[in-house]
Amino acid sequence: MERVYFDHCRSTFVDTEVIKEMNIWMTEKYWAPAPFTSTGTEAQEAIDESQAVWASFFGGKPEEVQFGASEVVLANVAIRGIVEAYYKKHDTKPHIITTEIEAGSTVLSILRKLEKSGRAEVTYLKVSKDGLVSPDDVKAAIKDNTAMVVMADVNFMVGTVQDVPVIGKAIKEKKDDVRFVIDATRSLGRTPLWKYADFADVVFTDAHRIHGPKNSSVLWVKSGVSIVPIVWGTVKHFDITQDKPDIPTIRGGMKALQILLDGYEEKYNKMKRLQRMLFDGILERIPEVQINGPWPEHRSPSNVCVTFKYIEGEAVQMYFDMNGIVVDTGSACANPFLQANHVILALYNDYARAHGSIRLILSWHNTEEEVHRFLDVAPEVVATLRRISPVAPEVYKK
Amino acid sequence: MERVYFDHCRSTFVDTEVIKEMNIWMTEKYWAPAPFTSTGTEAQEAIDESQAVWASFFGGKPEEVQFGASEVVLANVAIRGIVEAYYKKHDTKPHIITTEIEAGSTVLSILRKLEKSGRAEVTYLKVSKDGLVSPDDVKAAIKDNTAMVVMADVNFMVGTVQDVPVIGKAIKEKKDDVRFVIDATRSLGRTPLWKYADFADVVFTDAHRIHGPKNSSVLWVKSGVSIVPIVWGTVKHFDITQDKPDIPTIRGGMKALQILLDGYEEKYNKMKRLQRMLFDGILERIPEVQINGPWPEHRSPSNVCVTFKYIEGEAVQMYFDMNGIVVDTGSACANPFLQANHVILALYNDYARAHGSIRLILSWHNTEEEVHRFLDVAPEVVATLRRISPVAPEVYKK
Repeated sequence: MERVYFDHCRSTFVDTEVIKEMNIWMTEKYWAPAPFTSTGTEAQEAIDESQAVWASFFGGKPEEVQFGASEVVLANVAIRGIVEAYYKKHDTKPHIITTEIEAGSTVLSILRKLEKSGRAEVTYLKVSKDGLVSPDDVKAAIKDNTAMVVMADVNFMVGTVQDVPVIGKAIKEKKDDVRFVIDATRSLGRTPLWKYADFADVVFTDAHRIHGPKNSSVLWVKSGVSIVPIVWGTVKHFDITQDKPDIPTIRGGMKALQILLDGYEEKYNKMKRLQRMLFDGILERIPEVQINGPWPEHRSPSNVCVTFKYIEGEAVQMYFDMNGIVVDTGSACANPFLQANHVILALYNDYARAHGSIRLILSWHNTEEEVHRFLDVAPEVVATLRRISPVAPEVYKK
Repeated sequence: MERVYFDHCRSTFVDTEVIKEMNIWMTEKYWAPAPFTSTGTEAQEAIDESQAVWASFFGGKPEEVQFGASEVVLANVAIRGIVEAYYKKHDTKPHIITTEIEAGSTVLSILRKLEKSGRAEVTYLKVSKDGLVSPDDVKAAIKDNTAMVVMADVNFMVGTVQDVPVIGKAIKEKKDDVRFVIDATRSLGRTPLWKYADFADVVFTDAHRIHGPKNSSVLWVKSGVSIVPIVWGTVKHFDITQDKPDIPTIRGGMKALQILLDGYEEKYNKMKRLQRMLFDGILERIPEVQINGPWPEHRSPSNVCVTFKYIEGEAVQMYFDMNGIVVDTGSACANPFLQANHVILALYNDYARAHGSIRLILSWHNTEEEVHRFLDVAPEVVATLRRISPVAPEVYKK
């Protein structure tokens, strides 16, 4: 039985064409970039081309694109680098605006440590029941010492798509030196990042969620935006990230982007179609299901997040796993800190809903057959678990 | 004509077996680690096994091994993390001891920034003409506020191998809470790192110089040594590096280590033999050559660094390149900052010697035929350049 994989947020398989590209730079042209030699020049041109491809995607200039060691490192570089740049110009503590539904492993971790260390003050904006940030709230939160607004354009858990251009315009209208930083690690291939160049100052993303290699991390910084380096190395290749270029990974990420853009709309629409099949099928076949996040508007085409009432997400996850289907959950027991998913709590203030949540993240490589496999299995999984649930109503016990 | 590659410090080709291992985790088992599911458990076990393999190599425990995003990041994590840990326990500014011949792109960059920012004071020890650090000098430099001694066990430019056990013992005798941090990024496969566990507190290295993937970076931290995380993320997998695991790269690095250890002595002795052929052949065929660094004792088996008097290293490098042979140089023009190599300057205080230097870094994959190719080409390259050199004596002009 082929495994069905619906966890493309946490990891994706690497595309065969991407691996081919990586292999060229791992086995044939494994040179380091350097002046004066044919090998060194070839390596440098490989980096230059990758910068140009990403720049054209972002709507920026090649020199505005830098590669980093990982998305965690880049989140640090972007956010903490802007905080330090603020201190170079001001005597006051910088203020940062974000939302309460950002990624816990990167943006929220970093902001909480900045607060705790006294290096910045942070406003965590509330979001709507759909996970949407209000541009007016952002505007109202801006103060004299606001240095940046940082948020994901696609929420990792419930797939809410923020209106970056409108929020960006609102920020600049209020105070045009506030930096607008977009965590696009979950949105590559799911939102039109090329529309952000006029409204955002910094975007960081990673091609590993579009079937590129892990840690194919990319930082776009608009010319004129100051970021003080947070990881210290050389400025030889990238003056902000200061890391040495990992050419096979950089080329793999570039290739993944090129593959994405070749038939982008088809890929987008395929995900959208599978997503609708999943939501419709789940609602049709299973009673008492809660859709988490917005639907059908304002939602990433990849994201399906639902709660099956009365049962635990990690039990659902395990039963799907036994049926060869990989999904994720926002339940506390699956969380390393045993905390229920903070996004679902923020949206609904309902622990049971968070504990019972499962999340599917689609790729355009998923198929209708896989969706049917899921929909065939799901009713029995849910019914089985409700039969043994101590909190399920009697109707589910037979 | 097959290219001859002697630049295994800056980059290496990735071993076919390593690529096979990576491909398993990129295309078949591309799961993220997680509890409760078969896929998540398989991914977690893949990380666990890699930690165990490295721990056994270092002579430590699996939980003492963490993986990082890059060697630049790990150098930051180790050095700055110990500085911050020092501040948690002391009111004084920490003092760091290092040498003037450390790597400019990592250790020296970091230490200079720590000094400049006022976060630490640094003593840069002088080294002998062979690049050796005196254990007595280290001992004498230790003060009440000394937090760490950091140095490479193999110098990147001239291949000097430091006596880590003796230096480590000297440090601990004088003040046993001084952390001894080894930059082993250039020494993997060239020195017995497994002998350091009793004498060092922290070792960081990277399998990309033993034909593993780029950024297969590994940090060993002895139990009980405090390092405050410098990159902020989650502590889910690695509490010090706080990055997400890049399993294909971690597995590739593990595989590269296993391949290294399978017939380690043979590989070591082969490099030693090729190194001797190169030094002997160069001295025999070319007049007025200076060997940079120690020889034949205290030298990494990989390293060949010489200066051909009266000519410029980057010109030598270019001529070799035209003959399909890749070497590196310590000449200023090849340096992004147009500075002559600081190691050769530190050893000999002689700019011409630095400008005229070339460096070969061998792998056990190099062959005797490749060495012969180099030795056949070298006399003509040097003679040609000396003929046109404005500073060469008349005898070289015909």
